[in-house]
Formats: sequence, structure tokens, C-alpha cells
Amino acid sequence: MQTVLTGTGEPVTIGPSHAFVVIGERLNPSLRPALAAEMAAGDFSRVNTDGLAQVEAGARMLDISAPPGDEKGVLLSQAVQTLQQAVDVPLCISITSLDALHNVLAVYEGKPLVNGLTGDRSLLDAFLPVIADHGAAFVGMCTDENGIPEEPTGRLSVAHVIVDRAIAHGLSGGDVMLDPVVMPIGARRSVGHTTLDTIRLIRGELGVNTLCGATNISIGLPNRRTLNAAFLAMLIAQGMPAAITNPLDDTIRMTALAADMFMGHDENSERWLIANRRGADLEARRLERQEARRKRQS
Amino acid sequence: MQTVLTGTGEPVTIGPSHAFVVIGERLNPSLRPALAAEMAAGDFSRVNTDGLAQVEAGARMLDISAPPGDEKGVLLSQAVQTLQQAVDVPLCISITSLDALHNVLAVYEGKPLVNGLTGDRSLLDAFLPVIADHGAAFVGMCTDENGIPEEPTGRLSVAHVIVDRAIAHGLSGGDVMLDPVVMPIGARRSVGHTTLDTIRLIRGELGVNTLCGATNISIGLPNRRTLNAAFLAMLIAQGMPAAITNPLDDTIRMTALAADMFMGHDENSERWLIANRRGADLEARRLERQEARRKRQS
Repeated sequence: MQTVLTGTGEPVTIGPSHAFVVIGERLNPSLRPALAAEMAAGDFSRVNTDGLAQVEAGARMLDISAPPGDEKGVLLSQAVQTLQQAVDVPLCISITSLDALHNVLAVYEGKPLVNGLTGDRSLLDAFLPVIADHGAAFVGMCTDENGIPEEPTGRLSVAHVIVDRAIAHGLSGGDVMLDPVVMPIGARRSVGHTTLDTIRLIRGELGVNTLCGATNISIGLPNRRTLNAAFLAMLIAQGMPAAITNPLDDTIRMTALAADMFMGHDENSERWLIANRRGADLEARRLERQEARRKRQS
Repeated sequence: MQTVLTGTGEPVTIGPSHAFVVIGERLNPSLRPALAAEMAAGDFSRVNTDGLAQVEAGARMLDISAPPGDEKGVLLSQAVQTLQQAVDVPLCISITSLDALHNVLAVYEGKPLVNGLTGDRSLLDAFLPVIADHGAAFVGMCTDENGIPEEPTGRLSVAHVIVDRAIAHGLSGGDVMLDPVVMPIGARRSVGHTTLDTIRLIRGELGVNTLCGATNISIGLPNRRTLNAAFLAMLIAQGMPAAITNPLDDTIRMTALAADMFMGHDENSERWLIANRRGADLEARRLERQEARRKRQS
């Protein structure tokens, strides 16, 4: 199954036979008070610079959500408009209300990925007609009005509901991406395994693409970087073709490339070699700058 | 399925519901000329210190092989005897001849893991009676006299032959571990995926434990540490319960712990927390030493 998304530039194809897609996670104001305050004041300069920085670091899509309080997505749709002037990659947009959905889709150029839906039927039946109308794609989280199922099979049942409703509203399987739900491993020792098994079940039984926020897993634990990198590699091994994560973290960026190569998506290790050459180039430039500084100071 | 191995200390159990087992890879003289020269001269001091260092870094077993030229395993069996004085963990011993097998098993204390067999029937029928006689376990590599099968299903066929012969010679499924074969990813872009798929097939169809040398994958490429860590996490995600790798590499050591936690084997993240506290302790001691040095020099 392929999910094809667009911004104002080249389309991005997500699927098991395509290169892994990193969706930059940094434009999330609910986790970044400074960004939230700026967005609330109508200042989207950091949205643009942080968006661009993530694309330069290898993000092939960007995730963006509204600042707290922007229920109707007024600020969010302004941010999306500004961001699409700065970058041409497709966006994954978290929406929290039907108004926000309408407002965002009215301004978005291309085919976006709408995030924020669950297996709640009334939610699906309200949102999916709008999504289908605009020719968008969406992410459905494998949880519903009864909470997050503990077992992978329970999450698969929710996944079935999401896909069924999507088809009923005229969307295709490629327009649906499923989020297996990632909780912090500190909460219960089974949560990592549950996510990994859910991905494999969805892939085997529904064939629909999956995606998740890959850094929640490590909340509350030390050495999050190593945890996030290891979990990302494991998600990719299960067949997950995209993740919302931080490409500005070198370990994450390089792990995604490495794991993708092991999945057979890097012919002649070309992307790996280029990425590492680039690392060497950056290090060489850092040393040059350091040397220049020393000379100026002496 | 459980594989239980012993040295002179506590037994080590390998299996899907047990903590991941790192088998220290450093006692491999064919990759370490200095070690090979010392072993050839009957000097096993480095075998002991390097063995101990790996156990202290978390290796729960040690891999050891003969120096080049030691076809009959005379030096190898001496090294094994000396090493078993220094460490009490079970050993994984690579043998290259029937003489070596006899010599090593004659001196080994406990139940070792014999490495070096393939799916070659005449090899299996010559070695397995000796292994069964001594109550040892063994690793069978999924390759045979016709070479390494390109497809996972071909490797699974070899795996079937290995397990069938083992049962015929009176061994149990738990006494067999299968190596899916890891080749350098530089050789062909499918080799990572092939290994990962083979592990899953073996686990699903035979239920026998797997193991591999997890650092071959990156031979010839830059930034091997990141590649090895990512691949190790992916192998663990496929259900591989043990690997021959380098616990002295911090990235490898921490990745194994992280991935094992995500597989549900680290109750309350205890081992992760202890390992990271230990890292912090080491860092604190390093800073203390640095400070002391500064004071001495000033």
C-alpha cells in the first residue's frame, strides 16, 4: 500500500518498498512554551526557521500542531500558510476540532496528512467526509472512546473500524495511516512490545501503512537519545515506513538511515555514505572555525 | 524454547522470555593479530583480561576461537582451560575440526555452546554424536555445501535439516541455536533484510533460538558503531535472544539493554536505570581524576 502526500514540491510516497520517511516533530507548541507564546502572538518566524532546519536535516515531511487554546485552528492555519512559503514538503497537521479541520484544509496547498483522529465512530463520521472532500489523507490512532486497548489484538480491532469507516466515506486504504499508540515504557514494561506487535499485525492483516510518535517511549527515563534510537530501529524492523521524530538529533537521523539501509532501501549504501561524508565535512568545518578563532585570539 | 548453558557459575538461559544475552566477541584471534601471536606462544594472559573485561561490561557469555593454524584445537583447549579459571560464564567455542571438538570438550567444565557447524549433512553426522555424548549445545549456520541460500526460505530449509539431524542424534530443540548468517551490507542491499526475515521464519516455524555475529553487517562502511547498534536493535525486535557482539562498545551495550527493555524484559526499567547510573558514576570518576591531575600539574 502506498500513501502519497504533497506540499508545494515533489510528492512524498510512504510505503514498505519506499525509503523511510522522517516527519520532523519540532513544530509542536504544546511541548515548547516559547514557540507557543510566539505563535499565540502571531509570530511564525520560529515555525519557519525550525521547519527549514528539520528539512535540511533530512525530514521529508513536517508535523505541526496548534498552540494551546487555538481550538478553531485560526493560528494553526496561519502557521501552515506561512510554513508552506518556507518549505515545500508535505505537512502532517494535528487538528483538535472540526472547525480547525475546515480552516486548515481551506488554506493548505497540496495533499496533507491530517492527524488527531481515533477509532471513535462519531468522530470518524464527522471528520472523514471533510477529509475525503478535500482529497486529504489521515492518521487514525488505535484507541477509541473505551480507551487504549492493552493487547495488540484490541488495537487491531480499532484499526479495522478506522479503515472500514474510511472506505465507507470514499477514501482508499492508501489514504489511511494507523498509529499503533506509543506510551512511555516507564508506565508498564509491555508497552514497547505491544506497539511493535501491533505494527506487525496491522501490516499483515490490513496492509495499511503505520506511523507513530517515536520519542514518547522514553519519557521519564535517562539517556533518552539511546532509547529513542533503539526503538526507532525496532519500529522500522517491524515494517513501519514513517515516524514523527527529531531529525535534528544526529543519533536519530543516522539510525533512521542505517535501519532503512538494512530494510533494503539504500542501493549501494549511497545515502549512508553521503550522510557520513557530510558529517565529516561538518566536523572539518568546525575544526576550521575553531582554528580561526584561536588565531584571532592569539 | 530454552537453551541452558553453563560454565563454572550460574547457568545462563537463552530464550524469547528471557533477558537478551550478549556473547562477548573479542576473543577472536583471527581478527586480532597480537592476540593470535600471544596465543600461539602459549600466552593466554590477554585472553583472561579481555574475557574478564567483557564480563564486567555485561557479557553473559564469551565467544572464543582458535588462533590461525591451531587446527586440532590444542592451543584453543589450553585457552579455554585458562579462561575458565578467570571467568565463570558459559563459553561459545568455535571449532574447525573433529579433533578440536574432542580436545575442547575434554577440558570444558559445564555445558558449552559449540560453534562452527553448518547444514552440511556429513559434517553434522560426524560432529553431532560427539556433541550429544558430552551433553553440549551447538550453533548451526544456515548455509551448506551448496553455499549460502540467497532467500530466507532457502535458509529456513537448511535450518530444518540442522534441527532434524540434531533430533536424530538425540539432542533436543533447546540444544540447537541457529545462525541466520550475516553478510556485510556493502555486498548486496538485501542482506540485512534477508537476515531479519530468516530470524522471524525460524522463530515462527521451528521455534528454535537464533544467534548471530552482529557486527559483520557493517564491514567496509563508515560509522560502524551506529550501524551495529541499529542492526542489533532490529535483530532483537525480530525475536533474536542472543548475539555475539562487543559489550566494550558503550553504544552496543546500551542499545542491547534498551532493546531488551522494549521487548518487555526489564521490569520497572531497573537494569536501564542501574546501567545509566553506572555511566554517570564513571563520568563523575573521570571528572575527579581530571581535577586531581589539574591540581597536581598546577
